[in-house]
Amino acid sequence: MKEQELAITLSTTKKEKPQADQLQFGKNFTDHMFIMDYMQGKGWHDPRIVPYQPLTLEPSAMIFHYGQSVFEGLKAYLTEEEEVLLFRPEKNFERLNRSNERLCIPEIDVEFALKALKELIRVDRDWIPREEGTSLYIRPFIIATEPYLGVSPADRYKFIIIMSPVGSYYKEGIKPVKIAVETDFARTVRGGTGEAKTGGNYAASLKAQEISEKSGYSQVLWLDGVEKKYIEEVGSMNVFFKINGEVVTPALNGSILQGITRASIIELLQYWNVPVTERRISMQEVYDAYKAGQLEEAFGTGTAAVISPIGEFYWKEEKMVINNGETGELSQKLYDTLTGIQNGKIADPLNWITKLED
Amino acid sequence: MKEQELAITLSTTKKEKPQADQLQFGKNFTDHMFIMDYMQGKGWHDPRIVPYQPLTLEPSAMIFHYGQSVFEGLKAYLTEEEEVLLFRPEKNFERLNRSNERLCIPEIDVEFALKALKELIRVDRDWIPREEGTSLYIRPFIIATEPYLGVSPADRYKFIIIMSPVGSYYKEGIKPVKIAVETDFARTVRGGTGEAKTGGNYAASLKAQEISEKSGYSQVLWLDGVEKKYIEEVGSMNVFFKINGEVVTPALNGSILQGITRASIIELLQYWNVPVTERRISMQEVYDAYKAGQLEEAFGTGTAAVISPIGEFYWKEEKMVINNGETGELSQKLYDTLTGIQNGKIADPLNWITKLED
Ligand SMILES: Cc1ncc(COP(=O)(O)O)c(C=O)c1O
Ligand SMILES: Cc1ncc(COP(=O)(O)O)c(C=O)c1O
Repeated sequence: MKEQELAITLSTTKKEKPQADQLQFGKNFTDHMFIMDYMQGKGWHDPRIVPYQPLTLEPSAMIFHYGQSVFEGLKAYLTEEEEVLLFRPEKNFERLNRSNERLCIPEIDVEFALKALKELIRVDRDWIPREEGTSLYIRPFIIATEPYLGVSPADRYKFIIIMSPVGSYYKEGIKPVKIAVETDFARTVRGGTGEAKTGGNYAASLKAQEISEKSGYSQVLWLDGVEKKYIEEVGSMNVFFKINGEVVTPALNGSILQGITRASIIELLQYWNVPVTERRISMQEVYDAYKAGQLEEAFGTGTAAVISPIGEFYWKEEKMVINNGETGELSQKLYDTLTGIQNGKIADPLNWITKLED
Repeated sequence: MKEQELAITLSTTKKEKPQADQLQFGKNFTDHMFIMDYMQGKGWHDPRIVPYQPLTLEPSAMIFHYGQSVFEGLKAYLTEEEEVLLFRPEKNFERLNRSNERLCIPEIDVEFALKALKELIRVDRDWIPREEGTSLYIRPFIIATEPYLGVSPADRYKFIIIMSPVGSYYKEGIKPVKIAVETDFARTVRGGTGEAKTGGNYAASLKAQEISEKSGYSQVLWLDGVEKKYIEEVGSMNVFFKINGEVVTPALNGSILQGITRASIIELLQYWNVPVTERRISMQEVYDAYKAGQLEEAFGTGTAAVISPIGEFYWKEEKMVINNGETGELSQKLYDTLTGIQNGKIADPLNWITKLED
């Protein structure tokens, strides 16, 4: 697919931009969106940037019935020098293709998707908020659109990118969250779709999330679906523990999302010569470390919050308060470094940044 | 919600109806559809029958991202006396509510839904095909429509019913299918969404289905996600075995769909005094029965095909041919009885039929 095929139709009206202090995550969208269609036999075609607009689909479109969908989430940042930076965006499109593979959705051209995204950002560049901690959240997604009530991979899809200006996740600096360890519900299992970023995984998580919120926990920590012993990840974050000076995170096992923040944290720790291990880790082991006074820090990692220190776990009717419920030193240093690299305030030693104009 | 609130807008044009011999499952839809909206604080409101038309939704509508959706499938039949019959339709709306509960979707009023469905069928009554084996397939579904990119239950939904005239599943009488036992992939697990009729379960099943089709198997048999030992169900059917004169089906365990055909078969067998047991059954047990010459019949049950005799299982590189690959006596009798009750040709001893005009 060639770049010149990307058609651009500019919006004749412009929406009012929300004030920086009123940005709500994922509620306001920019003036334009990217769309590309797929039809069996024809492949991906008709890539275009158009005014942000509703989608019109048949009520029998497969997305409404059989959940064949994948998505991604990444951010663009405006630097003090008015440059626009993207954090490892090719990783998101590569992961989108891995999700596609699991969901029987045709793969996209990563290079072309990145070009299209850059063009879309250029068109809506003045939507990137400039205040400390703000960014432009980018949501690529693919949905099955074939109008057919049969359980089989669709022959038609839409690949869409929408963008939303978002505020700082933490208004007054990072603040530890409380997490409930889920012992009844499951989000996925070995052989399931856990490694794919697909709607069904999130739909399956709502019930446990709702119950834990009622008890004052902001998210749940999922254990493996088979034995309910081994730690997988948090609702929309991967998870790390600092135990007795060593950083540990669950090894990728097919049912854990391959977080891009997770991978970056591991690379950064290695670059710093901080011991970090990816391995199977049980909740019992974390509990034992806690009891022995060796659980020094715990944190979640993800595009939305970057680093989320965990101040408390609730497991089997017991509360485990970590580091007095305060942000740990390493969590803070990782947050400062990662967000610093992302918004261009500090050097990018591991070559993660893509500039819009590159 | 009161019946009189149901507004009806008739279509000014009528689509051409497909010929009976050209009916494809789930590809043609009638002239009208039912829609009702939900908004938090307001509840379900604005129930209406309108001309069949596309849905217009924001690209950020949650259904496109987080898979919060449920659906149902049932059929209406036209008898030789020109009466319209529904098979246990209240069971479908009750199951829809159980799916709603798991997916954090607000429940619907079963009685009102049934009234609305009957009205919709009345409006599109001339779409019910009259040829032997044909019927009107009915698809109620609910989707999350709130335009918000946050993982939480939506505050807005649409409940929609569309209908599609369908041909006989078996053009030349019932014909045994070949089923591959799935040993790698999982569709759901204990604590997951298996018991709910939600899109994600079907999306998760596509990959295994695609692989087994390539080897000539029409569907897969799912084993439990924990031990990969115990039989759960087929792609879109529950499963029964006749072993040494006794009928056995996996007990409901939270990850198996509570099939309405399944429940009806059990009731019918009990009515006939044929021994039938719901219990945990392993694939090894079925294999051992097969080796001992005691696996007399196997069949799937579901709304689409009613009874699907299973002529062959493929498990761990071995083919198990059942009853010489032919339809068993009990399978045939169950098919004849159930379809006979459904299309009004034989008596309805267990009171399953709802007449449109009741
Ligand atoms: C289930 C899940 N795990 C982990 C993550 C973190 O991934 P990333 O760091 O790529 O944002 C996310 C968010 O994308 C997620 O949805
Ligand atoms: C996964 C699954 N199991 C079983 C069934 C059979 O259920 P029923 O007999 O209610 O159609 C279906 C079809 O509805 C299904 O999708």
